[in-house]
Amino acid sequence: MTGRRINELSAAFRAALLDDTIPFWLSHATDREFGGYTTFLDRTGKLLCPDKPMWVQGRMGWTMARLYNDLEKRDEWLAASRHAVDFIRAHGFDTDGRIFYAVTRDGRPLRKRRYLFAEIFAVMAFAEYGKAAGDRESVETAKRLMRFVQELHARPWTEPGALEPKVMPQTRPMRGHSMAMIQINTLQILRGADTTPDPLPYDALIDAQIDEVFRFFVKPEKKALLETVGPNGEYLGETPEGRCVNPGHAMETAWFIMAEGKRRKDNALIERVLPILDWSLESGWDPKYGGILYFIDVEGRQPVQYEWDMKLWWPHNEAINATLLAHSLTGEKRYEAWFEKILKWSLARFADKKHGEWFGYLHRDGSLSHDLKGNMWKGPFHLPRQQLFCHLLLEEMKGRK
Amino acid sequence: MTGRRINELSAAFRAALLDDTIPFWLSHATDREFGGYTTFLDRTGKLLCPDKPMWVQGRMGWTMARLYNDLEKRDEWLAASRHAVDFIRAHGFDTDGRIFYAVTRDGRPLRKRRYLFAEIFAVMAFAEYGKAAGDRESVETAKRLMRFVQELHARPWTEPGALEPKVMPQTRPMRGHSMAMIQINTLQILRGADTTPDPLPYDALIDAQIDEVFRFFVKPEKKALLETVGPNGEYLGETPEGRCVNPGHAMETAWFIMAEGKRRKDNALIERVLPILDWSLESGWDPKYGGILYFIDVEGRQPVQYEWDMKLWWPHNEAINATLLAHSLTGEKRYEAWFEKILKWSLARFADKKHGEWFGYLHRDGSLSHDLKGNMWKGPFHLPRQQLFCHLLLEEMKGRK
Repeated sequence: MTGRRINELSAAFRAALLDDTIPFWLSHATDREFGGYTTFLDRTGKLLCPDKPMWVQGRMGWTMARLYNDLEKRDEWLAASRHAVDFIRAHGFDTDGRIFYAVTRDGRPLRKRRYLFAEIFAVMAFAEYGKAAGDRESVETAKRLMRFVQELHARPWTEPGALEPKVMPQTRPMRGHSMAMIQINTLQILRGADTTPDPLPYDALIDAQIDEVFRFFVKPEKKALLETVGPNGEYLGETPEGRCVNPGHAMETAWFIMAEGKRRKDNALIERVLPILDWSLESGWDPKYGGILYFIDVEGRQPVQYEWDMKLWWPHNEAINATLLAHSLTGEKRYEAWFEKILKWSLARFADKKHGEWFGYLHRDGSLSHDLKGNMWKGPFHLPRQQLFCHLLLEEMKGRK
Repeated sequence: MTGRRINELSAAFRAALLDDTIPFWLSHATDREFGGYTTFLDRTGKLLCPDKPMWVQGRMGWTMARLYNDLEKRDEWLAASRHAVDFIRAHGFDTDGRIFYAVTRDGRPLRKRRYLFAEIFAVMAFAEYGKAAGDRESVETAKRLMRFVQELHARPWTEPGALEPKVMPQTRPMRGHSMAMIQINTLQILRGADTTPDPLPYDALIDAQIDEVFRFFVKPEKKALLETVGPNGEYLGETPEGRCVNPGHAMETAWFIMAEGKRRKDNALIERVLPILDWSLESGWDPKYGGILYFIDVEGRQPVQYEWDMKLWWPHNEAINATLLAHSLTGEKRYEAWFEKILKWSLARFADKKHGEWFGYLHRDGSLSHDLKGNMWKGPFHLPRQQLFCHLLLEEMKGRK
């Protein structure tokens, strides 16, 4: 990448982050009456639903503290992070220590699900906020919650209090990729925040999750990272679930692991993870209309999800992160070419020039299927994280020139 | 409708039913080794997944017995119905009397859900099969299961064994349209099959469900039949769920109620239900590309479901039934025009001229999004039911000329 392009991109990501993405959420999503954020917004930022997803509270809490920690010490960002963290503290926890999936605008519980992502995003928020505010108690909360998540996730289904698997484990035991993937990133965040005298053994815990990814889900003979396998990594190829690949998800995993390799200067780990990125780009990029398909079938059969061929915003953010990081680590031109191609395709279709931020959902042909800006899942996370990550990485690349 | 068109359509529906739809399922879905039907099929009829959804077993059991009862006494159809019913009997029931959502090919349980549709479709199958086979025990099984469904559905969430609502009822109690709608049809089927000395009070039970539809879900001021309301019909307009309209679903309800009015020669009931059809056609028909949108927002806001603007096969089948029945009952030309328009649009896009049966899923613009023929929900039901219903209705219309 030329120095000129690096300068241009770094400035563009920073400007989009600070002049568009963050102001969109702070001005439209902040609930000054009941606390927390209402992120279920239409194209212009008007409320589509007052309910508060706890995933998104955690993500907003993390994003704003990360900006404070890594970009600038702006008080308003620290306050915006605390605004999410306070809401989680006040209304997020059920009596069993788990976190609700969604609550009403004033904090009364609506749903609790069998997945642990509300808890995971709360760990991220408590950890990053604790670091930003110098608040050790928040970091300790994050650590306790992380241990609780790991314990619950590992608890056999036959034991009391275990999470009920979606498919009956006595008939078809299964293992999903997402918990390994998200734990790598959450533990990385917690490691960066934990300056207490008794840190968790982060490197070893991260190694265990990376090992799980490679041991169970990565199938070089199929050129794929599978979403769901048997308990020992068995290929469940008879079912659509067992054949399912989510290329954006796989690329997100790939850059989490690449970032770990970079930190440890472990080139073998980086080399080991690059094929996941290569496979995902080859199989995930839509040869017909461009963009990254949401789900594909590893045998090339018809995927079953309604949305399989839609283009969602976040796989594009994760692909942009993964290709830029791969380019910066390897110097390989093809990653630069993929990065530019995905970025160009995405900006032309997802970025809303009129009302700011990104659209989230396109039809296969790239036309808009929804013009909303947020819902139970889309909030201030994948896009601002990508803008911040790429800006900081490009700044680093400048220094290396 | 001209006599010539009636003749042509009646023959076309019968031919499509008997030469295409039914042979597709009987030849590709029948599991001669383990019993029951594997309906998760690709475009050509090859297996995409060996798992057996119990919804679809019930629907296939009903469809084949209905053909036997209403069209011709073909032994192979009775046997095909029994093939489903026997599988449900052998592998469908959990120890609590409920029916699993899906089992493996050899009948081991995979999932059980909090909804009662697996049970409902089993009632239909046991009732219609019992009538076809003259098997009173099957009809009694259907009646027991129907009473169980009604009792479970009515059981307060605070009582032991109650089904867990998706959204916590202590925070936001809600009432869904689908159980009222499906009970009307299930009770109609059961009434037609029950020649035992102690029938349930079917007319009164049906009246209660029709009353529920009009009292809680029909909102003339919004020109809509809503999917979800508060416990006393309150409009939950703050949330996307409360603003959600499913036009195909509403038209299905409309023709179930019209059929009841027709049977009872109750013109007031027919007049009362016609607006539901009118609203659904007006708001559900896509002005841009034609076809019926899957979900719309009653306030015209952005619907949130991924698939909101997809064109699914079954709303088109239900719209075809509803418009033809409305035309035959009222003689109004506009229903004939709608019927012809929807039929033409559907046949041009859903019917698979190469491998038979219908595709199930189109993008908004009418292009194919999936080429599969069956999955956990799509099976031998909406299409053959529509073909049979329209054929029989057209035959009746002939007689009236």
